[in-house]
Amino acid sequence: MNHKIYLDENEIPTKYYNLRADMPVKPAPMLRPDTKQPVTLADLEPIFARELARQELDDETRYFDIPAPVRDFYKIYRPSPLIRADKLEQALGYAGKIYYKYEGNNTSGSHKLNSAAAQVYYAKAEGVKSLTTETGAGQWGTALSEACSYFGMPLTVYMVKASFKQKPFRKIIMRTFGADIFASPSDTTAIGRKMLADDPKTTGSLGMAISEAIEKAVTSDNARYVLGSVLNQVLLHQSIIGLETEKAFQKIGEYPDAVIGCAGGGSNLGGLIAPFMRDKIKGKKAIDIIAVEPKSCPSFTRGRFAYDFCDTGNLTPLARMYTLGSGFVPSADHAGGLRYHGMSPVLSRLYADGQLSAEAYKQTEVFEAATLFAKHEQILPAPESAHAIKGAIEYAKRCQAAGETKTILFGLTGTGYFDLAAYESYQNGTMKDYVPSDAELAKSLKNLPQTP
Amino acid sequence: MNHKIYLDENEIPTKYYNLRADMPVKPAPMLRPDTKQPVTLADLEPIFARELARQELDDETRYFDIPAPVRDFYKIYRPSPLIRADKLEQALGYAGKIYYKYEGNNTSGSHKLNSAAAQVYYAKAEGVKSLTTETGAGQWGTALSEACSYFGMPLTVYMVKASFKQKPFRKIIMRTFGADIFASPSDTTAIGRKMLADDPKTTGSLGMAISEAIEKAVTSDNARYVLGSVLNQVLLHQSIIGLETEKAFQKIGEYPDAVIGCAGGGSNLGGLIAPFMRDKIKGKKAIDIIAVEPKSCPSFTRGRFAYDFCDTGNLTPLARMYTLGSGFVPSADHAGGLRYHGMSPVLSRLYADGQLSAEAYKQTEVFEAATLFAKHEQILPAPESAHAIKGAIEYAKRCQAAGETKTILFGLTGTGYFDLAAYESYQNGTMKDYVPSDAELAKSLKNLPQTP
Repeated sequence: MNHKIYLDENEIPTKYYNLRADMPVKPAPMLRPDTKQPVTLADLEPIFARELARQELDDETRYFDIPAPVRDFYKIYRPSPLIRADKLEQALGYAGKIYYKYEGNNTSGSHKLNSAAAQVYYAKAEGVKSLTTETGAGQWGTALSEACSYFGMPLTVYMVKASFKQKPFRKIIMRTFGADIFASPSDTTAIGRKMLADDPKTTGSLGMAISEAIEKAVTSDNARYVLGSVLNQVLLHQSIIGLETEKAFQKIGEYPDAVIGCAGGGSNLGGLIAPFMRDKIKGKKAIDIIAVEPKSCPSFTRGRFAYDFCDTGNLTPLARMYTLGSGFVPSADHAGGLRYHGMSPVLSRLYADGQLSAEAYKQTEVFEAATLFAKHEQILPAPESAHAIKGAIEYAKRCQAAGETKTILFGLTGTGYFDLAAYESYQNGTMKDYVPSDAELAKSLKNLPQTP
Repeated sequence: MNHKIYLDENEIPTKYYNLRADMPVKPAPMLRPDTKQPVTLADLEPIFARELARQELDDETRYFDIPAPVRDFYKIYRPSPLIRADKLEQALGYAGKIYYKYEGNNTSGSHKLNSAAAQVYYAKAEGVKSLTTETGAGQWGTALSEACSYFGMPLTVYMVKASFKQKPFRKIIMRTFGADIFASPSDTTAIGRKMLADDPKTTGSLGMAISEAIEKAVTSDNARYVLGSVLNQVLLHQSIIGLETEKAFQKIGEYPDAVIGCAGGGSNLGGLIAPFMRDKIKGKKAIDIIAVEPKSCPSFTRGRFAYDFCDTGNLTPLARMYTLGSGFVPSADHAGGLRYHGMSPVLSRLYADGQLSAEAYKQTEVFEAATLFAKHEQILPAPESAHAIKGAIEYAKRCQAAGETKTILFGLTGTGYFDLAAYESYQNGTMKDYVPSDAELAKSLKNLPQTP
């Protein structure tokens, strides 16, 4: 038995798969914040590269060609391995099989690079002169810096000031790839200067960083703002994860009974499950597809399915999604990513339609699962990815209790090299389990925008 | 063209190759420090597992079987890819080919895991109950922790106090794998307590940590001390790097004209070059084999070929090697590893016999090469590995000047995720280029031990 199933470079998919084309009920359209009418291509083109705007709105086209330069970029770190977790199975005493698709084998350390490459390529091909983005924990900023370095695209990253100070190494990697990094709020934008004037000691937030990045893009010559999750286009690019996984399973003549992934904005989960969800929707396979989220930011398990803003500053279009309210920010005690108040509209639709289920776990039990995994599988997982590990372990335990030996697949989205301070707090027993109260959630859900 | 050449798991070598068997002049034997007579198997067995002691002394056996459990461990992260540096070639305008063998795709982040797995396995198989070691920069301690976690072997690591404080993340990874880590000198050994009494503010040294690890091993029940470089057995285990590389080149019908690796104690270089040096020694191939070292610790390029102690505390056997004197410690301005005062006796013999050449570079030019490489090849190299990158770039430039298009192979031993403070000092312009003066070297070479 092979421990890892690698595809050949020639087997890297040549097309992205658009799950929306096979959804009987499509995700609700995004609405303009002013008119509350569905956004059009004309609305999106000043924000996104043309091809990306087209991908964002297209619910019908099943496949999009992956451009050759993007495929060349993917060859640097793809195909990623599908790995049999045989040592974890032994440790659990599980008689079924557990597999994971590992996306951490690249310098940026996560799956975010898959969409970064596509977004940078299209912008470059259309003559965009520079990009801006925000980053919190830093996975997206690192991935985008790496892709921009490769395609020769100038990049400005606004990094939440608290993370800028707490994760200095993220910023050094981004600088190695040539990106300009500013701690947000900064004095490089009007809105940043205003925020600093209002509160000189602010440690920033993702919402503030988004505002700065957008201002920088719209005030620079032919610049665009890009982001790394939630959007339909991002899930489309991430379908490469699921397509490779499907092909690897075909090679070994197997098919998973359960597909499990962590869920923040939904980019990794949406990509991993794409072909498996297609088979489920079409009635070809009766499988379990499970989103795992932190109890500290429980958009699926405790959120509301409603139109909401995508950002804290309420500048963006409205998306219909599971949301905790755009003002919701999980406690600083929560480590790593998966901190977003909303959820991909595609995944939200599937969850509402009962095609996808969701589970939430506390932070310390997630790090316990991460440590067990590291000891047996010899990979140090990112805290985000460890949610999927926890979900897979719990699924295996339920199978054991029922006397079943199902084949479990989960997504291991990245490495924890930049999250070791969180591992330390887990080891020292100082890690906290934050769970928002009902009152807290009711408050942040109170001011959802009105829609027709 | 494939960017990466992967072997199948079934093609992982089943035997280590012992280059000593093909050396016409063998490396000089180690000498006991008391009698100055060659060490025997009986001398080594209290220190090393029996099989490892046998491997250490055997200059005749050409191949050693890799035990099945060690091969299973290798399947977690091997075969490692041989990668065509096509983007670096383009950036340099080099018309020849550059390949690198990448050993950083594992959680420990370097090639050290190859020997760690073998050493832990043999100790476990022979009933050893625990292991001790020292670590400086932390690559070896991390690799050994990972292997000990897998094979279920308790491990105590003495980490130089300065590194313990400067690289806290290294220690958290080791703890995740279940190792006990102490900042050295510590109060857990008699010699540590004495060192602390002599100088309560000492920041420690590799020499002190070795002394503590050895004391801990000899005063514990059936424990052994292990180390990660310099020794013949370590080069033997690392031959897996070279054997895989040879097989990958056979697959694509090529053979390198130059093989380049960084050199500290010699473990990676000795492993990478093994089959290529064999072909050179046997007159089958006329190739260049080049060791690259830092100008701050120039054992090959400015050291003396003589018997010397392997440790600063002068407790170990004497080895005949290129040495800067066992009291030599490079400036703290020097980042990363490659800080050892001596050099593998095998490589020292080959260098003395003109089979191997050596070059030394300054720290800032090495980080300049590292940054160029990261931007084009999308891998963040360890500072150690970046010496080989610099050597390869300079070799390519010499070829260009001569109108040649030679095929260059270098070893990329690991990632720089834990060396980002050094990258920062390079980016900030505060990185220093330390080069020892002639007087300094003369002083540290003055007290070499007398041998018959």
